[in-house]
Amino acid sequence: MGTVYLIGAGPGAPDLLTLRAARILERADIVFHDALVHPEVIALAAKARIVGVGKRCSQISTDQRFINRALIEAAQHHATVVRLKGGDPMVFGRAQEEIDALTAAGIECEVVPGVTAAVAASAELKISLTRRGVSRSVLLATPRVGTDELPAEWMQAAAAADTTVLYMGSGEARQLVDALKAAGSVPGMPAVIVESASLPGAKKFFTTLDELPERASEVTGGPALVVIGEVLREAIAAMHQTAAASSSETLPTSAVG
Amino acid sequence: MGTVYLIGAGPGAPDLLTLRAARILERADIVFHDALVHPEVIALAAKARIVGVGKRCSQISTDQRFINRALIEAAQHHATVVRLKGGDPMVFGRAQEEIDALTAAGIECEVVPGVTAAVAASAELKISLTRRGVSRSVLLATPRVGTDELPAEWMQAAAAADTTVLYMGSGEARQLVDALKAAGSVPGMPAVIVESASLPGAKKFFTTLDELPERASEVTGGPALVVIGEVLREAIAAMHQTAAASSSETLPTSAVG
Repeated sequence: MGTVYLIGAGPGAPDLLTLRAARILERADIVFHDALVHPEVIALAAKARIVGVGKRCSQISTDQRFINRALIEAAQHHATVVRLKGGDPMVFGRAQEEIDALTAAGIECEVVPGVTAAVAASAELKISLTRRGVSRSVLLATPRVGTDELPAEWMQAAAAADTTVLYMGSGEARQLVDALKAAGSVPGMPAVIVESASLPGAKKFFTTLDELPERASEVTGGPALVVIGEVLREAIAAMHQTAAASSSETLPTSAVG
Repeated sequence: MGTVYLIGAGPGAPDLLTLRAARILERADIVFHDALVHPEVIALAAKARIVGVGKRCSQISTDQRFINRALIEAAQHHATVVRLKGGDPMVFGRAQEEIDALTAAGIECEVVPGVTAAVAASAELKISLTRRGVSRSVLLATPRVGTDELPAEWMQAAAAADTTVLYMGSGEARQLVDALKAAGSVPGMPAVIVESASLPGAKKFFTTLDELPERASEVTGGPALVVIGEVLREAIAAMHQTAAASSSETLPTSAVG
């Protein structure tokens, strides 16, 4: 019986993979990868059979139960099986379902942590998610609900956290903002949408919570997340001061005190 | 003028460094590192001058203003200056103070994101921080307050979040638990202290929120963090069932429904 490695491929840029992940990929026999994993990362698995199981790999989304079964079967025939997920496997990666299935089948699994999208967005912005005197708590949340899942009360936590990072598509922005305001979030709170963080086509859309839905419509289809919180305010003010010199970023008009 | 790279060294294990970080270190001229960065990571900077600025490197903690000045001076004399921080620079890493000082001095800086301790602890536990139907929100928080900083209201957010990860030393557990219960956290909620996640001496102390202070006294001095939330419950129950076979972990008696 082989070992299944659940590996975080990082936020997008292939060189944000860990050294450990690269070494395991080089000796992998078979790799099951999500859609958003960079081709250069997959190419490291030079001797492996490559199987795409992400939603964008096949027209129909690959069923989670199919993936679980495929991992178990692969471990029965190969020494090194890799399940490659975008970001970190343990943050909105559905890793637990795979770990549970493998454990129940008596198959060894290891998790190799990765750079999650929130910190990649923060690096892209050059704005820290925490800041002394301003933010000591960061909420990572998603407004996405599975078909068999009840909506959770993440909005209360988001309203209470100093900084909130939402892993989301841009289509959900209107309901999201309404829910956050109902939970007590401040409408004028600075917000930014970061699209394709760490990749060459990365974009930043600075705005406020209230104006988030309008800006969200400008996202062009790359993986996006939203950062909301006071940590953004000074950075936005500084960018306003140098707005004349900056042509690559659109600046907000109402987020500055 | 050189460029300052604020680099996340990851949670502890040297091979959890990113490929990008390794490549920048190899060409670095000077490296300023925190105390908890692994010696093998620092050794990658083969041609650099190495300066330890963490609290454990010198008997007296290095003043943040001293670090800011040292980075600016280094960038005036070297092409590639590295500031190496444990975990990710943008999560409880005080990166913003350095970014602001560098920006004010007109010095180019780049942030290289890293694997933050929360996801390394999750990988160590093989328990995902999120889980469909159980957890869609993860709060990262710290009970630590700087000398010039007012205590923030992070407890409300922690009580509302599905999963909470506290970046902390083990000495603060009693005040922490009292504050969390006052904010509405459930006393019997499963909790685990993870010490030295990703390192050979990693330890896991499973418990409940109520019994956290007792277990915290068993931590032996490595970097520790606490995970609290329902995502732990099934894992703890499963470990109970196989408790006879496990000798390396102490199991809780009260966390299992």
